[in-house]
Amino acid sequence: MGIVVQKYGGSSLSDAEAVKRVARRIVEAKKAGNEVVVAVSAMGDSTDELLDLAAQVSPLPPARELDMLLTAGERISMALVAMAISDLGYTARSFTGSQAGVITDSVHGKAKIIDVTPGRIRDAIGEGHIVIVAGFQGVSQDTKEITTLGRGGTDTTAVALAAALQADVCEIYTDVDGVFTADPRIAPAARKLDKVTFEEMLELAASGAKVLHLRSVEYARRHNIPIHVRSSFSQLEGTIVTGSINDEETVMEAPIIAGVAHDRSEAKVTVVGVPDKVGEAARIFDALAQTQINLDMIVQNVSAAATNLTDISFTLPSTDAKAALECLDGLKEQVGFESLLHDDKIGKVSLIGAGMRSHPGITAKFFTALAEAGVNIEMISTSEIRISVVVAESDVDAAVRATHTAFDLDADEIEAVVYGGTGR
Amino acid sequence: MGIVVQKYGGSSLSDAEAVKRVARRIVEAKKAGNEVVVAVSAMGDSTDELLDLAAQVSPLPPARELDMLLTAGERISMALVAMAISDLGYTARSFTGSQAGVITDSVHGKAKIIDVTPGRIRDAIGEGHIVIVAGFQGVSQDTKEITTLGRGGTDTTAVALAAALQADVCEIYTDVDGVFTADPRIAPAARKLDKVTFEEMLELAASGAKVLHLRSVEYARRHNIPIHVRSSFSQLEGTIVTGSINDEETVMEAPIIAGVAHDRSEAKVTVVGVPDKVGEAARIFDALAQTQINLDMIVQNVSAAATNLTDISFTLPSTDAKAALECLDGLKEQVGFESLLHDDKIGKVSLIGAGMRSHPGITAKFFTALAEAGVNIEMISTSEIRISVVVAESDVDAAVRATHTAFDLDADEIEAVVYGGTGR
Repeated sequence: MGIVVQKYGGSSLSDAEAVKRVARRIVEAKKAGNEVVVAVSAMGDSTDELLDLAAQVSPLPPARELDMLLTAGERISMALVAMAISDLGYTARSFTGSQAGVITDSVHGKAKIIDVTPGRIRDAIGEGHIVIVAGFQGVSQDTKEITTLGRGGTDTTAVALAAALQADVCEIYTDVDGVFTADPRIAPAARKLDKVTFEEMLELAASGAKVLHLRSVEYARRHNIPIHVRSSFSQLEGTIVTGSINDEETVMEAPIIAGVAHDRSEAKVTVVGVPDKVGEAARIFDALAQTQINLDMIVQNVSAAATNLTDISFTLPSTDAKAALECLDGLKEQVGFESLLHDDKIGKVSLIGAGMRSHPGITAKFFTALAEAGVNIEMISTSEIRISVVVAESDVDAAVRATHTAFDLDADEIEAVVYGGTGR
Repeated sequence: MGIVVQKYGGSSLSDAEAVKRVARRIVEAKKAGNEVVVAVSAMGDSTDELLDLAAQVSPLPPARELDMLLTAGERISMALVAMAISDLGYTARSFTGSQAGVITDSVHGKAKIIDVTPGRIRDAIGEGHIVIVAGFQGVSQDTKEITTLGRGGTDTTAVALAAALQADVCEIYTDVDGVFTADPRIAPAARKLDKVTFEEMLELAASGAKVLHLRSVEYARRHNIPIHVRSSFSQLEGTIVTGSINDEETVMEAPIIAGVAHDRSEAKVTVVGVPDKVGEAARIFDALAQTQINLDMIVQNVSAAATNLTDISFTLPSTDAKAALECLDGLKEQVGFESLLHDDKIGKVSLIGAGMRSHPGITAKFFTALAEAGVNIEMISTSEIRISVVVAESDVDAAVRATHTAFDLDADEIEAVVYGGTGR
């Protein structure tokens, strides 16, 4: 009998009725002849409510205690799901991350899974139970402390369980029907993808598509676990994430472009007038790295011949912009740059597709579409299967729509879905 | 340096402000030179809210999952208390019951502590931390499952920790100033007791005084751990529970009467016309025991000579009355009794004091006081240091006041306190 791992996010577990609906869904999978293991997030907004309580008690709570607090959220939802399953006449056993053998490193708040030892899960399966596991959490290998995996962590828990249990598939249930060629709220003609490769999904996730968390896709690719992203509100087939762009057959079948992603959460910082000599850029990015700031796109153009000065721009999460500017301000004399510019009214639009490797002219077509829509490009960055541009925030919608149409992604009929984040 | 164990109940942890006040209190004890270990209950009404959620999901949730759910409550409060302490510049480590080494039997919902192995607590103390432990919970020895100790469980957690750590004292913080000679809401002249023996406290708790849970007093007596019951809202000294009525010195110092307790939570059932022959009573109480019903007082008088029939009355928690009546109904033909009477408009009033062993006339004085107050006695039961009577529920207040006055327990000045339950 095959093992199916399912994941239900907070939006699928908003209240008692939702918990009961999820339980029916789980029981269906069991009735269909599968062994079922389920990873759950905290209910609805309960994580934010706990964070709120913490903030009322302490402006800067210790990370260890914050993890202790937040893990209560999944504990509540897993117990309720198990109860609802029992009410349907099936038996379920819920396990915390620690009980489930989710072993992590010791970095509170964003721990990485380093091993899964699912002894208790296997025992419970052997006894005929459905297994419910608290997502987003684990226990540290060295210190035996409770840890959390950070936002999107329950996706990663599900994939890690699927890998450890050699499951047939990892089903990620969410509030949308699957992975779309663009956000349907912006491009109403967006289509659901039936299939997408791990690499494309990675680029989509990194470029702002919120349906799957980046880390879970990385984990699935590394362990070659197919992910089925689907809606907990319908019976429709969703999107299968599987296969590599390096696999001939996959690429032959794949469309040229998987989709258009966008991201409004970043800001742009430009260091103006940096002396163009060896080591200046290193000095700047060293300092930023030591402030624990994650940068996204970095662009430096050739310096103006007359002045021998250059400008360096980068994007980063808006929430980190203040810290970055303070850090750079402290370097001003040392580096000798002229000034700092800061713009948080930007957006990033990315075109992603394995097929672009073998199809010349994609970039030209992309930029032409943007030009025809009157969208000015501020920054450009590319990877093997992705082209990203930074544009004014007010141009994001037009850019997504124009690109989507230019690459013939528009569906014949518009599907009625809502595309949104999935919390954890 | 001595170890002090403190316990804070849900009413002392009602919201973020209350958590911060408790944290200040804990830090004071640390500053005074103690090692401090704290057991906490879930915040305010959060346990009831979780029970409510469970009821919405399943009418009869599995006990294992209910324990998993409820233990989230203390997890939240312990993490918040630790955060608030850290905000005051001290370090705290919170531990679940399982992490703290609270080992129980496997009876979900009302597990008994069978051992405490506080290795992690000792380590944390050794590192200079204040330790916060989730009350009310543990982990089962055989199955390694999460268990809860039932209502009042956090009192027991605190006492068990104090015993395992050989603490100097176990301070139970609550919303009243200590143990009173009667409920001040009923007898406004009630006085706070400075000291009371374990046995007296046991009888008080068993007779309806809600300030300490019966099981925690039993545990403290067995391990000879002094309990200091005091208010988390004031700096007043509370009541010390310590010493035995079998210790000469203690008895010499003790007042004759410790207090008057009352309990309105019981109902009375009378089995009318039971044939007075060997084995009939056993048959009745065997059947009730098998239905898992705990009886309190049991009274049987001599049978009427003419009929050779007798009546057997007992009291039990009102919530169990329905089950008891159904059970007895099934025995009617077998036992051949005449009928069943049921009265849930009763109350129990108890007079408790170690001194009554050596002072004759206590019973007469008690009954005279009740008679003068116009209170009719329905049932009587006595122990070595307690006399209890069942009266009409509407007579309870008058009975408590009359008894309190008759035994000279009234204070000269009325203390302004509220006497109430402490949740867990």
